Amino acid sequence: MKIETPTLLIDKSKVESNIQSMLNKIDSNTIFRPHFKTHQSAIIGEIFKEKGVDKITVSSVSMAQYFSGNGWNDITIAFPVNLLEVDSINELAKKVKLNILVESSFSAEFLHKNIYESIGVIIKIDTGYNRTGLIENDPKIDSILEIISSNNKLTFKGFLTHAGNTYDAVGRIEILAILEESRSKLSNLKQKYISRFPNIIISYGDTPSCSICDNFDGFDEIRPGNFVYYDVMQYHIGSCSLSNIAVAVACPIVSTHKSRSEIVIYGGAVHFSKEYIAADNEFRLFGYIVRVNENGWGNPISGAYLKSISQEHGIIKVPDDIFNEFLPGDIIGILPIHSCLTADLLRKSSLIIN
Amino acid sequence: MKIETPTLLIDKSKVESNIQSMLNKIDSNTIFRPHFKTHQSAIIGEIFKEKGVDKITVSSVSMAQYFSGNGWNDITIAFPVNLLEVDSINELAKKVKLNILVESSFSAEFLHKNIYESIGVIIKIDTGYNRTGLIENDPKIDSILEIISSNNKLTFKGFLTHAGNTYDAVGRIEILAILEESRSKLSNLKQKYISRFPNIIISYGDTPSCSICDNFDGFDEIRPGNFVYYDVMQYHIGSCSLSNIAVAVACPIVSTHKSRSEIVIYGGAVHFSKEYIAADNEFRLFGYIVRVNENGWGNPISGAYLKSISQEHGIIKVPDDIFNEFLPGDIIGILPIHSCLTADLLRKSSLIIN
Repeated sequence: MKIETPTLLIDKSKVESNIQSMLNKIDSNTIFRPHFKTHQSAIIGEIFKEKGVDKITVSSVSMAQYFSGNGWNDITIAFPVNLLEVDSINELAKKVKLNILVESSFSAEFLHKNIYESIGVIIKIDTGYNRTGLIENDPKIDSILEIISSNNKLTFKGFLTHAGNTYDAVGRIEILAILEESRSKLSNLKQKYISRFPNIIISYGDTPSCSICDNFDGFDEIRPGNFVYYDVMQYHIGSCSLSNIAVAVACPIVSTHKSRSEIVIYGGAVHFSKEYIAADNEFRLFGYIVRVNENGWGNPISGAYLKSISQEHGIIKVPDDIFNEFLPGDIIGILPIHSCLTADLLRKSSLIIN
Repeated sequence: MKIETPTLLIDKSKVESNIQSMLNKIDSNTIFRPHFKTHQSAIIGEIFKEKGVDKITVSSVSMAQYFSGNGWNDITIAFPVNLLEVDSINELAKKVKLNILVESSFSAEFLHKNIYESIGVIIKIDTGYNRTGLIENDPKIDSILEIISSNNKLTFKGFLTHAGNTYDAVGRIEILAILEESRSKLSNLKQKYISRFPNIIISYGDTPSCSICDNFDGFDEIRPGNFVYYDVMQYHIGSCSLSNIAVAVACPIVSTHKSRSEIVIYGGAVHFSKEYIAADNEFRLFGYIVRVNENGWGNPISGAYLKSISQEHGIIKVPDDIFNEFLPGDIIGILPIHSCLTADLLRKSSLIIN
């Protein structure tokens, strides 16, 4: 393993195991449509494909184009449709089964006038996250359905939510409560509209709840994404163990400062983004520290953590008694706080191991 | 201006004016070696070149390679030397006048054994930021000088500091106090070593202090970078006015939510990074909002701000009374919190205007 600059190490056997664990929980009545925004990688996509996955979720038209070019042909863009990309959406829909998300009559009307290819339309429902989507009893749902139904290129596919509020939850009970609320709201919607649209589905999925829940009854589709790699944030939420984390960033040590027991690495905001976990007394955790070896990495070093990052630098605090083990020119590993953003930044500097 | 996805708008006339304002403050005895990590752009580099700049600072070997390939041949890599890239450093030093930073005998020793080309060596001094560098009376300075002096490929160039603690300062007085501390410490070092190394220089530079200070006497070189674009963080520190900010991210509006007076944009952490300014009651500011027109953008909209971002989404709060002015498919502009990180993320999606 010859590493000179910050490099995302992807442990393939952990990736396979994370995917398999999720698959084991999903029965054959439930569609598994994993979100590929976490890895954005055709190679990681192949691992899913080998396990029988043939439907995916992405969060942008450009990601849909990328995966379409890599043999995926059933794609949901789980993002409120960007009307400015309607030409690209028409182009994509010629090649793949494409689903897009709508949450306003305005956008539905625009699509009605500007979509020339067959396309699936999903209404985004806000079950409590308050970021995007319509609440379950919003009369706009009927207005949208009226517009969609009047156009034979647009097929109403169902309702979808992303309960991102699980990221602010602590522990199993809070997360499962959020999941149950979503299950109830989406199921009610399905009941309400199933007679008019017999094929509609309800789609759910975020890594915390999909990792913790063992029973997806009622949902027709689930779409977690982050679980493929997991990260320190998911560990803190309670979605995974530290050993499930399938990515670490290998970083060169460039300096050591004994007086404050700190190590400076080449590895900063342009590699990790600036996500952190905050605690009392202005403590910020930007990542756990692991030793990297030929086969991957070990458990986090107790008492060591990435305490701050600037554009290219990271500062690691290490316990005094092991300070002397680290020298400029060594490689050290960082378990990232948010693997989606880290993987996005290191797409062109990654290495699959195991 | 046809924009479909998040795009960094770079206002060329503001860039020119920001560069000119800095140049106006620097007399002919002071080397101006701007930091190019902010823009990382050959095109923006040309604007500096037209104004007579021929020496630059970068923060990585890859950035040095990029600018070397674009006609720059006097480059300082202002980052503790990454020993793992010594081969690339030797290669680069064949082509350009290259300076690298050292802050340990260990790294100096390694360079002594592994550098085959003529290269300038600068010792990084920590004048109070506590990130990298040696304190001014550290005996390691002499050890490093001894090693460097024994090798005829390595030329000691002087002392450099980055007083990044100005980013935590508030207002003119605090920032200038930090600058004076650095000037004093670096000047003392120069005095101490000038007889032995008659050509050494002392190099200083961060955007807050270089923007506020009008007198660089004593410094031989200054290296600000962010000032080329500025950003909301610099405005908050007091380094610039809002009208100096030379970049805005044009983002498609994808949804609007009247009940909470919020607008959802395509534009998130993968475009802005996750830098924010925090205030009381968990308020977070991820950017100011501007209207975009053919000639650029206007003043920030009073009462509107980017309140949160996830991977691809941003949520903008707007005042109730102007809510109806915004529709899906419109473009809105965001003045970023940290232009260096935003420009890094949008290197391939930028547009120079004016």
